Amino acid sequence: MTTGKQLLIKNGTVVNADQSVVADVLCFDGVIQKIAENISTDEAQGAEVIDASGQYIMPGGIDPHTHMQLPFMGTVASEDFYTGTAAGLAGGTTMIIDFVIPNPQQSLLEAYKQWREWAEKSVSDYSFHVAITWWDESVHRDMQTLVNDYGVNSFKHFMAYKNAIMADDEILFKSFSRSLELGALPTVHAENGEVVFQLQKKLIDNGVFGAEGHPQSRPPEVEGEAANRVARIAEVVDIPLYIVHVSTKQALEVISRCRHEGQQVFGEVLTSHLLIDESVYYEKDWASRAAHVMSPPFREKSHLDALWKALQSGNLHTTATDHCCFCADQKAAGKEDFRLIPNGTAGIENRMEVLWHHGVNAGRLSINDFVRVTSTNTAQIFNIYPRKGHIQVGADADIVIWDPKKSKTISAKTHKQNVDFNVFEGMEVNGCPSHTISGGKIVYINDELKVEKGAGKYVNRPPFPAYYKPRPLHKRYDK
Amino acid sequence: MTTGKQLLIKNGTVVNADQSVVADVLCFDGVIQKIAENISTDEAQGAEVIDASGQYIMPGGIDPHTHMQLPFMGTVASEDFYTGTAAGLAGGTTMIIDFVIPNPQQSLLEAYKQWREWAEKSVSDYSFHVAITWWDESVHRDMQTLVNDYGVNSFKHFMAYKNAIMADDEILFKSFSRSLELGALPTVHAENGEVVFQLQKKLIDNGVFGAEGHPQSRPPEVEGEAANRVARIAEVVDIPLYIVHVSTKQALEVISRCRHEGQQVFGEVLTSHLLIDESVYYEKDWASRAAHVMSPPFREKSHLDALWKALQSGNLHTTATDHCCFCADQKAAGKEDFRLIPNGTAGIENRMEVLWHHGVNAGRLSINDFVRVTSTNTAQIFNIYPRKGHIQVGADADIVIWDPKKSKTISAKTHKQNVDFNVFEGMEVNGCPSHTISGGKIVYINDELKVEKGAGKYVNRPPFPAYYKPRPLHKRYDK
Amino acid sequence: MTTGKQLLIKNGTVVNADQSVVADVLCFDGVIQKIAENISTDEAQGAEVIDASGQYIMPGGIDPHTHMQLPFMGTVASEDFYTGTAAGLAGGTTMIIDFVIPNPQQSLLEAYKQWREWAEKSVSDYSFHVAITWWDESVHRDMQTLVNDYGVNSFKHFMAYKNAIMADDEILFKSFSRSLELGALPTVHAENGEVVFQLQKKLIDNGVFGAEGHPQSRPPEVEGEAANRVARIAEVVDIPLYIVHVSTKQALEVISRCRHEGQQVFGEVLTSHLLIDESVYYEKDWASRAAHVMSPPFREKSHLDALWKALQSGNLHTTATDHCCFCADQKAAGKEDFRLIPNGTAGIENRMEVLWHHGVNAGRLSINDFVRVTSTNTAQIFNIYPRKGHIQVGADADIVIWDPKKSKTISAKTHKQNVDFNVFEGMEVNGCPSHTISGGKIVYINDELKVEKGAGKYVNRPPFPAYYKPRPLHKRYDK
Amino acid sequence: MTTGKQLLIKNGTVVNADQSVVADVLCFDGVIQKIAENISTDEAQGAEVIDASGQYIMPGGIDPHTHMQLPFMGTVASEDFYTGTAAGLAGGTTMIIDFVIPNPQQSLLEAYKQWREWAEKSVSDYSFHVAITWWDESVHRDMQTLVNDYGVNSFKHFMAYKNAIMADDEILFKSFSRSLELGALPTVHAENGEVVFQLQKKLIDNGVFGAEGHPQSRPPEVEGEAANRVARIAEVVDIPLYIVHVSTKQALEVISRCRHEGQQVFGEVLTSHLLIDESVYYEKDWASRAAHVMSPPFREKSHLDALWKALQSGNLHTTATDHCCFCADQKAAGKEDFRLIPNGTAGIENRMEVLWHHGVNAGRLSINDFVRVTSTNTAQIFNIYPRKGHIQVGADADIVIWDPKKSKTISAKTHKQNVDFNVFEGMEVNGCPSHTISGGKIVYINDELKVEKGAGKYVNRPPFPAYYKPRPLHKRYDK
Repeated sequence: MTTGKQLLIKNGTVVNADQSVVADVLCFDGVIQKIAENISTDEAQGAEVIDASGQYIMPGGIDPHTHMQLPFMGTVASEDFYTGTAAGLAGGTTMIIDFVIPNPQQSLLEAYKQWREWAEKSVSDYSFHVAITWWDESVHRDMQTLVNDYGVNSFKHFMAYKNAIMADDEILFKSFSRSLELGALPTVHAENGEVVFQLQKKLIDNGVFGAEGHPQSRPPEVEGEAANRVARIAEVVDIPLYIVHVSTKQALEVISRCRHEGQQVFGEVLTSHLLIDESVYYEKDWASRAAHVMSPPFREKSHLDALWKALQSGNLHTTATDHCCFCADQKAAGKEDFRLIPNGTAGIENRMEVLWHHGVNAGRLSINDFVRVTSTNTAQIFNIYPRKGHIQVGADADIVIWDPKKSKTISAKTHKQNVDFNVFEGMEVNGCPSHTISGGKIVYINDELKVEKGAGKYVNRPPFPAYYKPRPLHKRYDK
Repeated sequence: MTTGKQLLIKNGTVVNADQSVVADVLCFDGVIQKIAENISTDEAQGAEVIDASGQYIMPGGIDPHTHMQLPFMGTVASEDFYTGTAAGLAGGTTMIIDFVIPNPQQSLLEAYKQWREWAEKSVSDYSFHVAITWWDESVHRDMQTLVNDYGVNSFKHFMAYKNAIMADDEILFKSFSRSLELGALPTVHAENGEVVFQLQKKLIDNGVFGAEGHPQSRPPEVEGEAANRVARIAEVVDIPLYIVHVSTKQALEVISRCRHEGQQVFGEVLTSHLLIDESVYYEKDWASRAAHVMSPPFREKSHLDALWKALQSGNLHTTATDHCCFCADQKAAGKEDFRLIPNGTAGIENRMEVLWHHGVNAGRLSINDFVRVTSTNTAQIFNIYPRKGHIQVGADADIVIWDPKKSKTISAKTHKQNVDFNVFEGMEVNGCPSHTISGGKIVYINDELKVEKGAGKYVNRPPFPAYYKPRPLHKRYDK
Repeated sequence: MTTGKQLLIKNGTVVNADQSVVADVLCFDGVIQKIAENISTDEAQGAEVIDASGQYIMPGGIDPHTHMQLPFMGTVASEDFYTGTAAGLAGGTTMIIDFVIPNPQQSLLEAYKQWREWAEKSVSDYSFHVAITWWDESVHRDMQTLVNDYGVNSFKHFMAYKNAIMADDEILFKSFSRSLELGALPTVHAENGEVVFQLQKKLIDNGVFGAEGHPQSRPPEVEGEAANRVARIAEVVDIPLYIVHVSTKQALEVISRCRHEGQQVFGEVLTSHLLIDESVYYEKDWASRAAHVMSPPFREKSHLDALWKALQSGNLHTTATDHCCFCADQKAAGKEDFRLIPNGTAGIENRMEVLWHHGVNAGRLSINDFVRVTSTNTAQIFNIYPRKGHIQVGADADIVIWDPKKSKTISAKTHKQNVDFNVFEGMEVNGCPSHTISGGKIVYINDELKVEKGAGKYVNRPPFPAYYKPRPLHKRYDK
Repeated sequence: MTTGKQLLIKNGTVVNADQSVVADVLCFDGVIQKIAENISTDEAQGAEVIDASGQYIMPGGIDPHTHMQLPFMGTVASEDFYTGTAAGLAGGTTMIIDFVIPNPQQSLLEAYKQWREWAEKSVSDYSFHVAITWWDESVHRDMQTLVNDYGVNSFKHFMAYKNAIMADDEILFKSFSRSLELGALPTVHAENGEVVFQLQKKLIDNGVFGAEGHPQSRPPEVEGEAANRVARIAEVVDIPLYIVHVSTKQALEVISRCRHEGQQVFGEVLTSHLLIDESVYYEKDWASRAAHVMSPPFREKSHLDALWKALQSGNLHTTATDHCCFCADQKAAGKEDFRLIPNGTAGIENRMEVLWHHGVNAGRLSINDFVRVTSTNTAQIFNIYPRKGHIQVGADADIVIWDPKKSKTISAKTHKQNVDFNVFEGMEVNGCPSHTISGGKIVYINDELKVEKGAGKYVNRPPFPAYYKPRPLHKRYDK
């Protein structure tokens, strides 16, 4: 018996990571109920019908890396869970995995509850990685509670941000060892925070205060170093690893080597890192330079090519945004000292269309690849597949209907993100969502959002994903 | 309306490459008709029912590399399409892709028709790669005919076997260029045939006539050389590539590099290469040494470790057997000169159980990985997915029901392969097929085959697989 | 007793690959007789004295790769042994190793004698590599004669130039095996001639006739392929290898891997490849584009960076020019078809000054590195060290006195090379020879040559260099 | 005028890294005075004459890594500067570079002076690296004093030994930056001390107390991690780097990559690591296992092969011993807990003969290679060349006369090292010193030492070695 309204998507092509098929899709009760050729409206009486002729019916995007309303560097990200998840829906993204980031010495559970509270206004589904920013017995204990009772299956570690939330090798080792027991996946921001700190100091000592000091204090080597260090620690602990926002050839070489040697290392790439290069830090306008300040920074062009290749080859697995918005007045805090510019850029609304245009249209990715790297892989890695990331009967009715003929020029003037800058400003993209469906309801249509505050649900993610099985003989065979 | 008998598999766990789910499976008319929890026998009246409690319902295996009744080195492989496909079914393999190998100067179509005729007695489904062993205008033309009219989407090239079927760089370049136009996939046996020839001569000149001369004339370098050469040629032509029976670290390094650089190179590994090392060529008994003669030969142990790691990481994609049987009396042709020993070993019956035991039981592969590398990847690469390689409604009812508790000791005395030797002799494996279903019928149950000569059907494979899209900008971006 | 005039170089710094020391140098009888602080003119009565204050006294350069008066592509290189060796002396190069290139089917000895005759007019010392362009028993026999009786210790192989002088794998294997017996070093031009041939045809078929077709038919992959192939063949034969004019990252990766694995592979780089990029093939003027046509062609900039790094690290060992001159009227033969443009550029006169300026002045090379890569390594690899390539008592008095303060603007208008184009046209260099001394005589001073036709001597190069010892256990330990 | 006795070595072959020549050598006043064929005894009246017929006259070995009378882990190394340098002379090693290791918070100068005092009894020449084990302004200042006033040009950093002398990334960065200003070379013990500490704890928690816990707590990954980290830090600082006792494939891959990319990284290998594998930690006898405890530990065999290859290729540059002796009663401190076993093994007496036997005799190294890796490279890297490491006029008369026909069986019973165990026990070597000459005096002859306490001199090592030039454009060109 149907308790909610029915939704019938007709005449489109259902695209999953493994196949494409012409079929209609019927949803109700928040779930995909039927996928078949020619579902008649008789069968789905009273159903709202979408005509998806010439369009693709794809799993809603999952952005595994956002920071809504993050308190950071003395301010708070301008995009909150309400506006941020709404902007995501406008771009076809129906779920985010955000981060709980406890202050050192703060209880993990306390922080987790704070973030849960903040997120209640979300309009799409959401979940949380929890950052391990310090260590004591309570952290060790709370990790278990979070995994067993609160649906957390991934813990984040910042190797950057010395004197703030940086995790040193001791914390990495202990947290990875604990994660292994719990069946959770360690994720890592790979930059050597100590070296960044020293380079920042050196630059300041040499009179470099401008925004260009930001990339100069974070050269590719510091990412390559950290990626290798954490991969080796994961190898010793014998646990899978997920490296967030991989931005350099140096880090990619680490991932390639690990995979060549059978080690399970997953890589995430930001859409912005695929398309924007370091020249933005040398533009005339300070505000524009500052607006691009994020970590890791944008890179010299040869890195961009390498990132695309890795995404094509499967050495990179997921695409994300690190969506973390600060407006010009917030960025201005670093006017006299680049170290004080709040790090972060927006992107959740544009991730999928930018990737479609420069990936699918450019011949780099097939439409199935597109689904794979915008949702399926993320759902599998974070163990919510096939509930998310796949169009199949029984899955959540989180769907984007993609119109390959629809065009758009990206601009901060028109975007729905709550921030005054867009790193893709002026970019024309062909291929955009015509409709976004969240929990079986149309939440975006005709360029308009129809969202309901708090309609998003928290998604529990169970531990011990399929790839995360006991590998008792693994080490022995590898040597 | 059902035209054939119904088959209902109950209480098992359906395992696909991307997920596992407890469900019943109903088949008729050769096709999977329904997958659902608790399909009642009312619904499937008259259906034959299999109780798969505690067992896995998986796509039947596909062996992409067999040589049934191959005329080779002055004799003919002892296993024909009837006995060979039957042995496959006994091991859970429900489809083979064999090879049409025209003699130089022989018409491709003529050879193709010959092989099709030989294969009519097959008891499981089958298809054919066609080898390009020479070149002229007729070959150029016949390739198109085979692709467009005969369901061939892959062409094989032997870089080994000088003075016989070896393809030199000119043939490789021309055939790859032609394949690109047709949407077909080049596959390659990567060994430098010239160097092998010279080393054979050198060994013979130095008085080495025994079977150990075989591996000594084919050191890992000759495979590494050929793998790199063909990968570079594919890179120049800008076409995907499939390397058969990868057996060395040297070749794996090529594949890793290619994938790191975004080039599409697929790798196949033989179960035997995963488990048997070169020491077999130094056993006392000549017959045993000769029985292990195949190309590429078995390798020093560190290669085996590397192959497993690549299979785990996804740098190797498919598992095969190169099933090509010669009995002791046939092998004896090379008693005085190792160059005359017919190259080949059996394995189709044991591929899956050996891989399960040493892969899944040993913690190297998840059960989903197992399905991926025994059927799904093969079906996707050779573009017959999801008809094959996936348990879903509408797919062919080629199914293996896997009993993880069933044990077996492999032996030539008991195997169903038509050959007098088994390279896995004496190996105990835990986990075997309890039933094999081909085209919706039970063809193997209680260790007995119930096959019907000629029941197997030829499988057309369409060109232009999903991964094989025009990549107009690919090269430009890569440089 | 001194038979010739004495020459005393005072007040300079003697620079060798391993050390620099302030000392005077006394030469007579063509040989360095004494190196000491403050050699008094009393001791060297009647000696001509050069004041080398503030200058470096270095071993004369050795260019291991020149083609004087080469008959090639239907014409003959414009620079002959007289003008070419003279131009070399003007640039501080006191010895060349040129190439005897027999036509296929031509006797090696006959060709060798022809080249020896041509070279009699040389004004500096010279020696010859002999190319193996075909194979039969006479070639096998003549290689021994050349090594034992004619002072040849290196054989060249062209993997390019199909239908002309290309050596296929059979020739490579046989020649390398023969070289191993004789203690000779194989050298190789690494480009896959078959692929080049096919690409040329494809370009022509597509209407590309212009000079840009030259680099487009020789992409980096064809060099990477050939370098790897020949390295693998050398590995199988277990012989050291020297790759001429390495121009790509792909080939450098091969060399790095070989050296990492303990294989002896030496790499040579052309000064022009270090400094000129592929944009020259897209200039407006056809003549200029054609003037840059050489094989391998100039490359995209990232290759240049990689070549410098390899020269710094010691993965590249020698610098050369591939000096092979064709004037505009000769280049014009390919006006309608790039395949007919004679391949070759000049450079012998500028090699050392260009390398000094962009190497030493730019901080990439120390002055000792400079000596190492302009003469010492070449002398060691080709086994004429320390007679050549080192300033020591008893060594040939082939010396360049280098003035780091002397400047020059390179131009075809002023160079002494017998060709109407200079690829370094307009380049300003700081650091040039003030004097060149050949066989103890001043042959270049005050920008003027003082050469004597035929004064150059043929240099015998003995087989079995120090690095080329029997390595009976090498292979066994490496596996 | 000669102030000391003359020594004339006749009829031998002088072997340097770059050449071998038959010549006599005359020494007096501690210096090599003349090298010539047939120096007559008339010319050297009263000279002591050594007949070196059939023998090699080579630079005395330099061991760049020893720890004489080191206070460590609660005890003091049993070998002091007197006995240790004497044992070195018995093995042909005429100079050591030992380590000053200040306690954290101890003044560098104070520690330096302490070590100088201890070393006064040395019988061969010696010098000191100084370890940076902590950081404050005094360390920054004392580094300059040591370089400018005390002949120190290298600083050592331990990435291992947490809670003792471990240098974290902050210290590495600061010390490297300071070294760059001073023209000093950073040297590094590359093992991740934090991970070792955690693994030790884990092993102890799991009841592993035996000596096998030592290698298990220091797997190859911890060395690979540290090598990469420190190489990246050196890359950021843009300073050359020297990695001591490289023992793993993982670290070698780092060095190969760095050199491929033009970064100056030198590698040292211990003779013991070339020949002894990890099986020694699984022998029955605890005392034997403990006697092999050193860091990094002995490795699985494939690492040994890789080390040899790197030594052959030039990716490893120097050979050392890490000579640090503890007797059985000292080792016994760790009977109940492997963490308490004093780390260290002997070797200074056997380094050269073991390397000769397994290097030169085995065909892996030429005799010139042998000189290069036993003295020349060390002298060049640590900037005491050609005073040390080369047989030339003006060089120190530190010479070993090597008899390739002399044999020996190594044993703790007969060795001159002051320790009760020899890791090469029972090894037969062909090729040993017949005479060792230190400062122009025969100190070892007929298997007997003739040493004089305190005869060894401290060797000042100047900063800014030749390879260590300002590279202002280096970074810019490399990117």
